Amino acid sequence: MSEYKAIGTPTPVLDGRDKITGQVQYATDIKIPGMLHGRLVTSPYAHATITSINAEAALALPGVVRVLTAADFPDIPPRNRNRLFLARGRVIFAGQPVALVLAETPAAAQDGAEQVWVEYESLTAVTTISEALAPGATLVWPGGKPGASGEAGAHGADVGDDDEEGEDSVAGPNIANGFVMKRGDITVGFAEADVIVERTFTTSMVHQSYLEPMTHVAVPDAYGNGITIYASTQAPFYAREQVAEVLDVPETAVRIIPTLPGGAFGGKFFLYESFVALAARAVGRPVSLNLTRSEEMLATNPAPAAEMRVKLGAKRDGTFVALQGDIKVDTGCFPSYHGVAGWLLGSYYQTPNLESRYTEVFTHKVSPAAYRAPGAPQATFALESVVDEMAQQLGIGPVELRLKNASKPGDPLADGKPWPVMGMTEVLQATQSHPLYQNRAEAQAKGRGVGIAIGGWPGGTEPTSAQAQLHRDGTLHVHIGSVDLTGTPAGFTLIAAETFGVSPDKVRIVYGDTSNMPYAGATGGSKITYMVGPSIIKACEDARQQVLTIAAEEMEADPADIEIVDGRVQVKGVPDKALGLGELAKKTMDFGAKYAPVVGNGRHANTEGAPGFCAQIAEVEVDRETGEVTVHRLVAIQDVGRVINPLTLEGQMQGGVMQGLGWALYEGMAFDEYGTPLTGSWVDYTVPHFSHAVPELEMVFVEVSAPHGPFGAKGAGEPPIIATAAAVANAIAAASNGRVTQLPMTAPRVLAALN
Amino acid sequence: MSEYKAIGTPTPVLDGRDKITGQVQYATDIKIPGMLHGRLVTSPYAHATITSINAEAALALPGVVRVLTAADFPDIPPRNRNRLFLARGRVIFAGQPVALVLAETPAAAQDGAEQVWVEYESLTAVTTISEALAPGATLVWPGGKPGASGEAGAHGADVGDDDEEGEDSVAGPNIANGFVMKRGDITVGFAEADVIVERTFTTSMVHQSYLEPMTHVAVPDAYGNGITIYASTQAPFYAREQVAEVLDVPETAVRIIPTLPGGAFGGKFFLYESFVALAARAVGRPVSLNLTRSEEMLATNPAPAAEMRVKLGAKRDGTFVALQGDIKVDTGCFPSYHGVAGWLLGSYYQTPNLESRYTEVFTHKVSPAAYRAPGAPQATFALESVVDEMAQQLGIGPVELRLKNASKPGDPLADGKPWPVMGMTEVLQATQSHPLYQNRAEAQAKGRGVGIAIGGWPGGTEPTSAQAQLHRDGTLHVHIGSVDLTGTPAGFTLIAAETFGVSPDKVRIVYGDTSNMPYAGATGGSKITYMVGPSIIKACEDARQQVLTIAAEEMEADPADIEIVDGRVQVKGVPDKALGLGELAKKTMDFGAKYAPVVGNGRHANTEGAPGFCAQIAEVEVDRETGEVTVHRLVAIQDVGRVINPLTLEGQMQGGVMQGLGWALYEGMAFDEYGTPLTGSWVDYTVPHFSHAVPELEMVFVEVSAPHGPFGAKGAGEPPIIATAAAVANAIAAASNGRVTQLPMTAPRVLAALN
Repeated sequence: MSEYKAIGTPTPVLDGRDKITGQVQYATDIKIPGMLHGRLVTSPYAHATITSINAEAALALPGVVRVLTAADFPDIPPRNRNRLFLARGRVIFAGQPVALVLAETPAAAQDGAEQVWVEYESLTAVTTISEALAPGATLVWPGGKPGASGEAGAHGADVGDDDEEGEDSVAGPNIANGFVMKRGDITVGFAEADVIVERTFTTSMVHQSYLEPMTHVAVPDAYGNGITIYASTQAPFYAREQVAEVLDVPETAVRIIPTLPGGAFGGKFFLYESFVALAARAVGRPVSLNLTRSEEMLATNPAPAAEMRVKLGAKRDGTFVALQGDIKVDTGCFPSYHGVAGWLLGSYYQTPNLESRYTEVFTHKVSPAAYRAPGAPQATFALESVVDEMAQQLGIGPVELRLKNASKPGDPLADGKPWPVMGMTEVLQATQSHPLYQNRAEAQAKGRGVGIAIGGWPGGTEPTSAQAQLHRDGTLHVHIGSVDLTGTPAGFTLIAAETFGVSPDKVRIVYGDTSNMPYAGATGGSKITYMVGPSIIKACEDARQQVLTIAAEEMEADPADIEIVDGRVQVKGVPDKALGLGELAKKTMDFGAKYAPVVGNGRHANTEGAPGFCAQIAEVEVDRETGEVTVHRLVAIQDVGRVINPLTLEGQMQGGVMQGLGWALYEGMAFDEYGTPLTGSWVDYTVPHFSHAVPELEMVFVEVSAPHGPFGAKGAGEPPIIATAAAVANAIAAASNGRVTQLPMTAPRVLAALN
Repeated sequence: MSEYKAIGTPTPVLDGRDKITGQVQYATDIKIPGMLHGRLVTSPYAHATITSINAEAALALPGVVRVLTAADFPDIPPRNRNRLFLARGRVIFAGQPVALVLAETPAAAQDGAEQVWVEYESLTAVTTISEALAPGATLVWPGGKPGASGEAGAHGADVGDDDEEGEDSVAGPNIANGFVMKRGDITVGFAEADVIVERTFTTSMVHQSYLEPMTHVAVPDAYGNGITIYASTQAPFYAREQVAEVLDVPETAVRIIPTLPGGAFGGKFFLYESFVALAARAVGRPVSLNLTRSEEMLATNPAPAAEMRVKLGAKRDGTFVALQGDIKVDTGCFPSYHGVAGWLLGSYYQTPNLESRYTEVFTHKVSPAAYRAPGAPQATFALESVVDEMAQQLGIGPVELRLKNASKPGDPLADGKPWPVMGMTEVLQATQSHPLYQNRAEAQAKGRGVGIAIGGWPGGTEPTSAQAQLHRDGTLHVHIGSVDLTGTPAGFTLIAAETFGVSPDKVRIVYGDTSNMPYAGATGGSKITYMVGPSIIKACEDARQQVLTIAAEEMEADPADIEIVDGRVQVKGVPDKALGLGELAKKTMDFGAKYAPVVGNGRHANTEGAPGFCAQIAEVEVDRETGEVTVHRLVAIQDVGRVINPLTLEGQMQGGVMQGLGWALYEGMAFDEYGTPLTGSWVDYTVPHFSHAVPELEMVFVEVSAPHGPFGAKGAGEPPIIATAAAVANAIAAASNGRVTQLPMTAPRVLAALN
């Protein structure tokens, strides 16, 4: 029997019915009188000079109101992608917005975009990492590189930004940023190794593939420079700050109204908000930019492709003695700060000798940003493949080898700092005892393969606040400032109910916009439950104390003798004098009432993240004729600190695993040698869907309590995507002896690995 | 030099420009997709049976969607006017809504309303107090009287509702409620008097005449029973509670979005919200009811007419020995709870023998509700006229006679409780020393008359809460739950700035709706500055303390050694290490930031009101041929406790005085003997306007600090309307020897008084 009344209760997503029945308002449902609809005119060239833009034909079309070009935007240095706005004389990726057509209807905007005639002079483009790093390569930024921290960095680890001890920076032509993290002597280490495994790996650019395309509606204030933006963003307060800086107005002159995101996965931190704001300001009318799927594939911010080399040396008994990693990320035309890849690669396992090199390389391609555990699936695919191969060569069980070398709390991270409390070992132990792992020989006997891999995420932090108000109908309203991506409100009702002492159905979680929400950081980095939860607890504890004080005065008792039972306050053990919470609230919300309203205040900050590990066991079958892979079972075993709401947690993990399966088998944005995108829609870019064989999924929770987490809980969003591709690759190797080193592991690639 | 930096700074109304330039959104600007427009079909009879309603012709008109009748509404007991909805078989006042036409456009709704054919059988109506009280009179409520507390009661004094000592209730046929408050022996008192003055008075029904007619838009939730209502209301949380009760849903299933009221003056507490909500629910579409001026005059809730008899006995030296009052209020078809009239009449002055009788009488007329100081202008007109006549008969100066008998803090009120701290004496002293009073003989010599009167208001109380958030642009946002009727936000910025220690331009006052505002009571009863102010102070003190704590940690100093100077925090006297408040906020609102967001929490309750007195000096000229009165000067001298913002305070007082002038000279809703309204628009109902001679106005502030008020301030909204009519009447008497006892004092009535 649980020590808790509410925590751990399976609770469905609160707005599930709204979503299923189509009652939810998304950003695209926002209709503002006088609103213009925008459509982008994008570059077909990866690198070119713009010689002319002729909008006459477009402007002659009925409904087309304006065609904006760079001349209509302020000439702000494009220090990151969200400040590139419209191309100014030169384009640096195919898909780059060159003009914005504004029209009375979306159809007119589309017609207009097809009638804007842009002339280009094509220039040499560098479209791969090797091209970009070749001596004498064309520079993506000949006049000086842009730089500033990006959204991926806001997901968890502050990596490669400052001069850490034992960390050298990497620089050079077309290099955006980079570092080397070292420990011991890598040469000595490999010399001591009995077995060395070394492999190179590639992963593809992958799109977050949220169902709802990015949508923003900007409504300029009637006068002055303020603006309201309805945005499908994960980061309203961050967006507010950025837009204000671009508009050169005080931050609070910008109001961001976050609409419910129809999926985001890290891709909707911030991209077109300032652009749409500037467009609206330029025309003095509300402007809506609701991207098409094609614009999504051309001109948003997917996950970067990577090229990786990993070399691992071990003693015969399985002790790792040296690890060398070299990760190169194709960061397109802007830095994307995926250095956490290099940091994780050097942190999962303990080895006395380490060298982890990370390099971001500019190319003439769209620049990436955050996608669920940004950088981790790539690095984990490479490292965990090599570890698997090592286990095979050593004849040690793959879990056992990992358990032998797994980092423990207090062990050094790649940057030398200590690991906080985390449960890598406990997750591996649970994996070890899982029947699918225990009985993997049975699968083998059926011609299948069972593979395992593990991945972890450091977990982000950002301050939060919350308020808890008691209302006359007996409900407790908890106001928070985050955005709901994953159904967290259901868990928050449990946290509030547990703390305040009522049943969860008496709790309402209230969201707002930047003008009325208490502050919370961006939703991303597996930190919403972890960081908002404690503010909710504090707010509810404060509210509870206020209730006890009022009840004590009403009942002429000591506050310590008051208890809240079944939605009523009473002197302990004297239920016949109980007062309903609604009745109590009425004594604080009425004409001439005696008591101040019950408003609990919660504020929380904490700079130590709670790392979360997730191991996965895949059982696969490989068609030796075609190379086609069928994943029969996928088990995800994750340390979540504390199960607050098993239903949303399981859903969250299932979603991550399925996305991981997309990375593993299906998804890859492709470009030709000129940098022209070949995957312009979901017709030629494949996401997992139900016509694929969906594996039997099993989610297993491990609970290693997080010291700062609410009831010990840690963020659960990022970990489940990290290890899937590696687990599937290892299962393929177990089934077929073929080692696939490229993502996605398409049938032709698998077939090639078999032969 | 003031002890304050911000308090007392003249600060213009913050949204003045928005209002002047038409940028403000009022309820009538709300357009919801699919919204229907409502128009009322009203009864031409004051009392009748409905024999049939035929909507066929209306429904045949293009755009008319539905015609609702009582059958479409739940059969809820009409315990007060806002639950009368549509007439069910019988009408009890002329103007009563009988049907609601819902159409796609306002014009179609209007056309439809003209084509709904209702047949009535007229019944005997009682339309005056004397008719209603005559033996055997037709009963307005033959089946049992309705009863519940009303909105007028929420303005200040809880009067006549319970069994106070020395307070008898009054009952009888067609009597809604009433009481007698007694002290000493009235017969003995009058026997001891040297001079007795006795008069009867009448006042008219007066409409609040806000510029914006009542407007409500109800939007039912897509499923479930919840609803959102955009309402031009003064009392969003009260409206929420009432609507929820009628809809039989939890209170928080109702969301009231208060739109900026275009004037309210007590009339917009709550009237058609539930009605519109039920209509929207009946048709399953959004419904807007935007009253016409004619509907306003027929079917809202103006101030009641009264008939009053006042008898005052005094010793030769001016000592009052007996006061008897008998106030009868025509409360139309529902109780309106104006008992504060009888309570004030017996409380302004001290006399050992008192009898104040108050009776509310049902008639077949529209029922009244709150209008700025509800009940006080009526009672004060009567009492202050009699006191003036007494001064004249005794040969004592009118201010001097009042000073001799004025109640002081601690003296008994009519109900025996003690007067709280208040400044009646100080206001009279300021009146005494004013040049217009001092030199009144000069006016007399020019054929003019100078008259004075005083009136007071107890001041309401209701709990409030507030939050103060510090943002990265260095602004402090103060979230409150009241509605802005009078420009209070300007004063609130001063209160917050003074408390937190920044300049007022760094403060923003943030309003919301019932789903996101911290609770505050209704805006009315002169209690917004008085009750919300302390919550703002507490929230800002809390936020300030948080800032000092963070700064102390950053600067490695003791919080007690930190100060806020010019928007920066610093160690006392060390400005070169100062940190901007925005920079400090950034340390609480950023990825990985160390400190919790600055969110100050303020909660306040206090059940002792702060009575406010306002004396007025009028200088008038009377045309002896026509009876026309010209008011040349009007001086209002008011105890405001503490001047927070002199500009809004002066505007507030000027508005009250001008409305008082409307009561005095122009305004009266008229009915014929059948109860048919004769004043159906502003063509035949006269409000003061600029074609009238506008007197020279002078506003004088007196500051008698309120113990619980913010910086000593007390509410200022109600007092300035109270004494105007009496001051003008007394000035007319001084100019002409004519004592006018009926409001409004139209030329024919003045002429009659002269002869």
